[in-house]
Amino acid sequence: MIYITRKEHFNAAHKLHNPNWTDEKNLEVFGKCSNPNWHGHNYELFVTVKGEINPSTGYAANLKDISAIVRKHVIDKIDHKNLNLDVDFMKNIMASTENLAMEIWKQLEMPINTLGCQLHCIKVYETENNFVEYYG
Amino acid sequence: MIYITRKEHFNAAHKLHNPNWTDEKNLEVFGKCSNPNWHGHNYELFVTVKGEINPSTGYAANLKDISAIVRKHVIDKIDHKNLNLDVDFMKNIMASTENLAMEIWKQLEMPINTLGCQLHCIKVYETENNFVEYYG
Amino acid sequence: MIYITRKEHFNAAHKLHNPNWTDEKNLEVFGKCSNPNWHGHNYELFVTVKGEINPSTGYAANLKDISAIVRKHVIDKIDHKNLNLDVDFMKNIMASTENLAMEIWKQLEMPINTLGCQLHCIKVYETENNFVEYYG
Amino acid sequence: MIYITRKEHFNAAHKLHNPNWTDEKNLEVFGKCSNPNWHGHNYELFVTVKGEINPSTGYAANLKDISAIVRKHVIDKIDHKNLNLDVDFMKNIMASTENLAMEIWKQLEMPINTLGCQLHCIKVYETENNFVEYYG
Amino acid sequence: MIYITRKEHFNAAHKLHNPNWTDEKNLEVFGKCSNPNWHGHNYELFVTVKGEINPSTGYAANLKDISAIVRKHVIDKIDHKNLNLDVDFMKNIMASTENLAMEIWKQLEMPINTLGCQLHCIKVYETENNFVEYYG
Amino acid sequence: MIYITRKEHFNAAHKLHNPNWTDEKNLEVFGKCSNPNWHGHNYELFVTVKGEINPSTGYAANLKDISAIVRKHVIDKIDHKNLNLDVDFMKNIMASTENLAMEIWKQLEMPINTLGCQLHCIKVYETENNFVEYYG
Repeated sequence: MIYITRKEHFNAAHKLHNPNWTDEKNLEVFGKCSNPNWHGHNYELFVTVKGEINPSTGYAANLKDISAIVRKHVIDKIDHKNLNLDVDFMKNIMASTENLAMEIWKQLEMPINTLGCQLHCIKVYETENNFVEYYG
Repeated sequence: MIYITRKEHFNAAHKLHNPNWTDEKNLEVFGKCSNPNWHGHNYELFVTVKGEINPSTGYAANLKDISAIVRKHVIDKIDHKNLNLDVDFMKNIMASTENLAMEIWKQLEMPINTLGCQLHCIKVYETENNFVEYYG
Repeated sequence: MIYITRKEHFNAAHKLHNPNWTDEKNLEVFGKCSNPNWHGHNYELFVTVKGEINPSTGYAANLKDISAIVRKHVIDKIDHKNLNLDVDFMKNIMASTENLAMEIWKQLEMPINTLGCQLHCIKVYETENNFVEYYG
Repeated sequence: MIYITRKEHFNAAHKLHNPNWTDEKNLEVFGKCSNPNWHGHNYELFVTVKGEINPSTGYAANLKDISAIVRKHVIDKIDHKNLNLDVDFMKNIMASTENLAMEIWKQLEMPINTLGCQLHCIKVYETENNFVEYYG
Repeated sequence: MIYITRKEHFNAAHKLHNPNWTDEKNLEVFGKCSNPNWHGHNYELFVTVKGEINPSTGYAANLKDISAIVRKHVIDKIDHKNLNLDVDFMKNIMASTENLAMEIWKQLEMPINTLGCQLHCIKVYETENNFVEYYG
Repeated sequence: MIYITRKEHFNAAHKLHNPNWTDEKNLEVFGKCSNPNWHGHNYELFVTVKGEINPSTGYAANLKDISAIVRKHVIDKIDHKNLNLDVDFMKNIMASTENLAMEIWKQLEMPINTLGCQLHCIKVYETENNFVEYYG
């Protein structure tokens, strides 16, 4: 079993805001991340896949195929978008890095299986100082 | 003469949109950067100052003082903000990295002079693949 | 279960020296790391915490809280310090990256539990070419 | 149990080409990686070793020893070389990052054991956007 | 006047070999860079352009246009290629980073002018430890 | 004229302390950088040299020669050392990054000339957030 990881980027706006709370409560919990006019990030997404090596190619999976799946199911939907307003799979969910990683997993688990390998980890960097990992 | 550089970060939302143009023209020129619901970046700001070394300190300028000026005049105004809506010094200006670098220069030139040295360069990274430098 | 990681920095002096050994033996084992007048590093500390997502916040834990704990229990005690001389939790222990990672774990395990999540990994970079990971 | 990682570099040429396939099939599967005149990379190799801390040194293993082993058994054989033509342990194997990681594991497993610790992971970056991990 | 920089990547094989010299002389001067079977690098190319800001766009030049020019005139010709054998503009020239930077300048100077701005600097990283800058 | 840069590393301890001042004054000016028991950094040194390309080699200067000079005249004297106590060319000088860059210039200017090229810039990173450049 071997693990291969592909890194992709997306730039998006978001805010953290719980509509059931007052503005004061939101500010207290989320601080400047609750700015009503949004802020944004250069997100980095690491998709790790595990499988066995095909001796004809030396690949566990072709990175071109992994990249095409990630672009179709994730990047094209969230790059240069507003995570709270524009992204179908983030509707009605707090736009935290934790939720983003979990929802990206759901988008990719099935399509990655079609390559004959398995999704192992979704890692999302929000800034260079904080990131989230989800293993399903 | 010696040059010292301080790096600071800010995360902001923006869009590129010329209100005198149709949506089609905006999309043609700015592409996905014109998304009406905004997108955002982890900006990196490099402030370079030049001066002579003070033999008592070994410093051309105290980095604590440079950092305090940059935070007061720039970071506190743009971090976790929307460059088009929330930032006084970007009002009525296209929120491009070029304009951002020039306007940050204007905010910092005078305050840096009060430290007995001169502003030399403002460098702003929008993503790891593109940055702008302005020398006044 | 989801994993969140916060990166912090500290700059410290240290040396590797076993007082039960001759200087020759120390030099043989530790090389230039045994320089009697110390040397130092820009350490990078990655604190990984695991927990379940709180649907009200989208957080497994608030990064502000994790950061406050790491600063209080670790960074404030070791940043711009001498690991061999100034740091209570490193007293009488070889100032290796391995021991540093283990002792940082001991400082953080309990306080992280108070956030309703668990410490998962302490990762310490001494230079960009070597790092240590400890999982408890 | 603690994990220590040493990073090393090597620069090498390679191509991906299955001699049982037509040029068209090779181009279809491997794309520009099948260029007959080779291309190359700045590879980064992370060798992770696990063991218990020796109280006399504070080390699980001396990084100088790990580095000497990695240089002797791997770097000296592949740095500034052609992976397909010059490297004994890659003969008759597709020069993919997956196979490279597995073969590097085989070169290092025994020698690392002589240090009183165990090889835990071989991680190879081919570019900053893709890497492979192998755990034996 | 403002300076904008676009970063691009290419992976290529090369060797340093002066055909007028013996193999011994080549080995003495170029060391392992003269390996007859090639080696390779992940090159990073920084193209810096200077111009005045167009108030309608906020741009000195549209990065999409700079990127398209760099891809057409440079990247498409050298990515996943052998610099000594496959690249028209490197024929009969030592494949050093210095020559590569100068020849890339020649490829880009005119096309960049068509954007209404001027080429300012070509910076080429061969490894993370060495790079070349050329200003025309 | 072309510019080549070589990056080297060194790890050192230092403190900022003016012996003509009280401890209070030192603490006020230098903050935690004045810790009496030292602290330290992973310094990065970028040495930029300018010259003309030798058509026989494609080099403005052989990086092996630049590296050998930098190691002999600088790295061997300061790596894993205490800048205030162990380094001849820093004696009686405040151990600031500014002074370090200037003194490194003095060590390298003449030896670099013997390669038939000229020293252009010394750039020293103290942390990833601050660096100094000196051009003679």
